[in-house]
Amino acid sequence: MSSLTAKMHWNGGVKFEGTSAFGHKIVTDTTRQSGGEESGYKPSELVLFGLAGCTGIDVVRILEKMQQKVHSLEIEVTGHQNDDYPKPFHTVEVKYIFTGEDLDPERIGRAIELSEGKYCLVSQTIQQPGKIITSFEIKPA
Amino acid sequence: MSSLTAKMHWNGGVKFEGTSAFGHKIVTDTTRQSGGEESGYKPSELVLFGLAGCTGIDVVRILEKMQQKVHSLEIEVTGHQNDDYPKPFHTVEVKYIFTGEDLDPERIGRAIELSEGKYCLVSQTIQQPGKIITSFEIKPA
Repeated sequence: MSSLTAKMHWNGGVKFEGTSAFGHKIVTDTTRQSGGEESGYKPSELVLFGLAGCTGIDVVRILEKMQQKVHSLEIEVTGHQNDDYPKPFHTVEVKYIFTGEDLDPERIGRAIELSEGKYCLVSQTIQQPGKIITSFEIKPA
Repeated sequence: MSSLTAKMHWNGGVKFEGTSAFGHKIVTDTTRQSGGEESGYKPSELVLFGLAGCTGIDVVRILEKMQQKVHSLEIEVTGHQNDDYPKPFHTVEVKYIFTGEDLDPERIGRAIELSEGKYCLVSQTIQQPGKIITSFEIKPA
């Protein structure tokens, strides 16, 4: 078993702030319309960016091994939710747009399949049911 | 049904870059050890930060309505995975650390339960099995 930890602290309003594994600051916030300041990322979009970045790494590497000459790759991730709570992203569409030299559609399809079906941790987390365990502590001020 | 879209494009190495809903730039990358440049967030940690930021908004708001005087809140999220592929975060621990004035443990427990069990989209996405639909396009260079 391995694990990864992320910490954030409340920074006024509904803003949360943390520091990433590589030392980059990260801030989440919400829309002005719903009382936020839009000063950071929407928490829900971080899941979609995480998925894009994760499958992107896999696909770029697998296609490199398959000696495919990719010049550019754009990944568009759309999460769909119901209008009523609970509102998970029950369906996520991932569209890959490539340019390159003599790209082979079969190899590209295979690379995407390997990432989404096996390697990409974020895809797997979305697809498989996970367990959330909560706890809390009240510290003296 | 509502939906949210996030787009990223490959920016060399295994780096992906996009722009968030509120106009903030976002970059994902991986460890130097595995060939990255550590120039952005790890894709997998974005899921954990998304969860912290999402449940954080809920909990702060619910406790405000419950007239609890929270002074500080830290949220620590740990995702556990298996060592072999596929490696989703099968279990995610979320620890909330509060300071405040006469905080009521019962109300705090209730606020956390409401967020994790109902309101927080990211929690719901982790807990419920989702579907991923992929497609690709090869554009002329």
